[in-house]
Amino acid sequence: MTPKIDRFLAEQQPATPCLVVDVDRVAERYHALQDALPLAHIYYAVKANPARAILERLVTLGSCFDAASIGEIRMCVAAGASADRISFGNTVKKVSAIREARELGVDLYAFDSMEELEKIAAHAPGARVYCRLAVENQGADWPLSRKFGTTIEHGRVLMLRARELGMDPYGLSFHVGSQQTDTAAYEAAIARVAMLHTDLARAGIEIRMVNLGGGFPVRYTSDVPEIDAFGMAISQAMTRHFGNDLPLMLVEPGRFLVGDAGVVSTEVVLVSRRGGKQSDPRWVYLDIGRFSGLAETEGEAIRYDFRTPRDGDACGPTIMAGPSCDGVDIMYEKRRVGLPVTLESGDRIEILSTGAYVSTYCSTGFNGFPPLTEYYI
Amino acid sequence: MTPKIDRFLAEQQPATPCLVVDVDRVAERYHALQDALPLAHIYYAVKANPARAILERLVTLGSCFDAASIGEIRMCVAAGASADRISFGNTVKKVSAIREARELGVDLYAFDSMEELEKIAAHAPGARVYCRLAVENQGADWPLSRKFGTTIEHGRVLMLRARELGMDPYGLSFHVGSQQTDTAAYEAAIARVAMLHTDLARAGIEIRMVNLGGGFPVRYTSDVPEIDAFGMAISQAMTRHFGNDLPLMLVEPGRFLVGDAGVVSTEVVLVSRRGGKQSDPRWVYLDIGRFSGLAETEGEAIRYDFRTPRDGDACGPTIMAGPSCDGVDIMYEKRRVGLPVTLESGDRIEILSTGAYVSTYCSTGFNGFPPLTEYYI
Repeated sequence: MTPKIDRFLAEQQPATPCLVVDVDRVAERYHALQDALPLAHIYYAVKANPARAILERLVTLGSCFDAASIGEIRMCVAAGASADRISFGNTVKKVSAIREARELGVDLYAFDSMEELEKIAAHAPGARVYCRLAVENQGADWPLSRKFGTTIEHGRVLMLRARELGMDPYGLSFHVGSQQTDTAAYEAAIARVAMLHTDLARAGIEIRMVNLGGGFPVRYTSDVPEIDAFGMAISQAMTRHFGNDLPLMLVEPGRFLVGDAGVVSTEVVLVSRRGGKQSDPRWVYLDIGRFSGLAETEGEAIRYDFRTPRDGDACGPTIMAGPSCDGVDIMYEKRRVGLPVTLESGDRIEILSTGAYVSTYCSTGFNGFPPLTEYYI
Repeated sequence: MTPKIDRFLAEQQPATPCLVVDVDRVAERYHALQDALPLAHIYYAVKANPARAILERLVTLGSCFDAASIGEIRMCVAAGASADRISFGNTVKKVSAIREARELGVDLYAFDSMEELEKIAAHAPGARVYCRLAVENQGADWPLSRKFGTTIEHGRVLMLRARELGMDPYGLSFHVGSQQTDTAAYEAAIARVAMLHTDLARAGIEIRMVNLGGGFPVRYTSDVPEIDAFGMAISQAMTRHFGNDLPLMLVEPGRFLVGDAGVVSTEVVLVSRRGGKQSDPRWVYLDIGRFSGLAETEGEAIRYDFRTPRDGDACGPTIMAGPSCDGVDIMYEKRRVGLPVTLESGDRIEILSTGAYVSTYCSTGFNGFPPLTEYYI
């Protein structure tokens, strides 16, 4: 919660549910990451929050962009980003999307399989490509390791094939998982990349870029290491494995740049103990739920922090659910949330650090609830 | 897949992903349910698919409507439904929503807690209310039992309190869970409702309505009982427990009316074995995923059936995933899907029985992918 958001909510009292993002905070975080990793090029993971105001601010700061789809590439271009600052980072791309990206001038493409490489070679001939390796995602609250990335052995085959196909075998990438709280995860991943780098050098392919992915965490309900700790761990590991002849480093922060720049304002719709007894669990139903923005509460993975008008009163364990008729629209049940026992319907509460992976994740009209209103200030 | 949808897809070749719904099929299913339960009033669960074309057709058929939100109530009214045919079936309602519903003329409200009852009494004084009881959801692929419903004991307290508050304690309801494939679930639930009916009669409250909820299944990959089997089980259980003086029966079908009226047309974006070995699992990535409409594949709960242009070729086990960069955007992995081994990117495949809980469940722009295009024919 930044002072600007606090003031906006107090003065405007916007209808709930809504998301308020302080774009100045995004700039602060951008500079903090730059300071922590001065040699790295920052590619903002647009999927975290593709709002025009955020993209435009990042363009003025000199950021590059990691796009998951042709839709995101178009948004970046519309916000003023030049195509040579955009990476098409999804390893799963439609042929039509590759073609359009190429026409727009995008020259950097991720892949992790032979079929994808051949698609890129056919529709963006000669482009720079980088191969995504699977690495451990331990320590991440939102792991990504099953769906993406190949082995070191097959990565070697793929990069050799890229050269044969007339592509520029430019780099290697990995992702340690989102909301990664362990700096050692990066160190282990860099060691793997370095092994393949050495293998490829022997085969005459000089890797010029290492894409370290994103995953840098923000504070929700638990403290996380400072960004400087990640910067230090990464820099040391890169030097240890690559020596003084460092490849270009890319990072793809999403959550880190926008997560704590946003706050959701929501209303308590109902507080009930449905069995009628004080010993029954207390349910608090909000006017936002898993299908209206809080998608990352699936499996209770991301644990948001709450601010209520009754903070300071005695607290009790609470099950938190969304407003829909859907039985899976429950945010926190296994690990209950401590909230004031005085809370009642009509109370307005804030969900902190909701700037990332909330706005575009809400449904178009699940149970008749419209998408979240957004304010960028 | 109806012949009309088949023809539409062949002739129009609409861009993927898209949903095509045969509205005539909705009417067929409406009549089948009416035949199976001739005494029941049908309240369509709008959340299953709130498309204007569906609502309008159901209005002409004489259907009533079960709404989850004020947004859905507005849609029903806009489609020509009169307010006395609308039930506000969500037990969790904003005060502002109750007020607006009341102003529109809605006179039937669900509740399952004291706080909600008091809200309804304050903002829709004198309205008909019905109390939702928690019942077993065994046999349902998409259970709803944790989040809603109260006990028989507390239901009694609540209904007595409703009378004290000047409300009309009109009925009782339950929900056996969505995609319920066991007719016995309804029989057990009716027995519970009948117990409370008897208790309340002794206290001078005559229940005039029993809302049997929805849950009637459609065929995905496994056969399900015919609707007549559910009609028979329900009718017999009602007669057994209520004798000849039957209360009015309401049913709230959603999936049953629209599920198999819709087909999603999607494109294979990538087929890959990321380790490069034939022994590696085969992944098929589609241009639709969990966040672009297939929300009910969460936990692999609803198992859709696929039709491919290569049906008849040898099949192999396949992991199916969506097009986004999100690691949880995987539809089927634990129980793999048998699909032709010849499948490749660019192939166009159909996902059958996707008329329910798909269209409005897709995100506004997850990973830059726009919402599903919809066609009602």
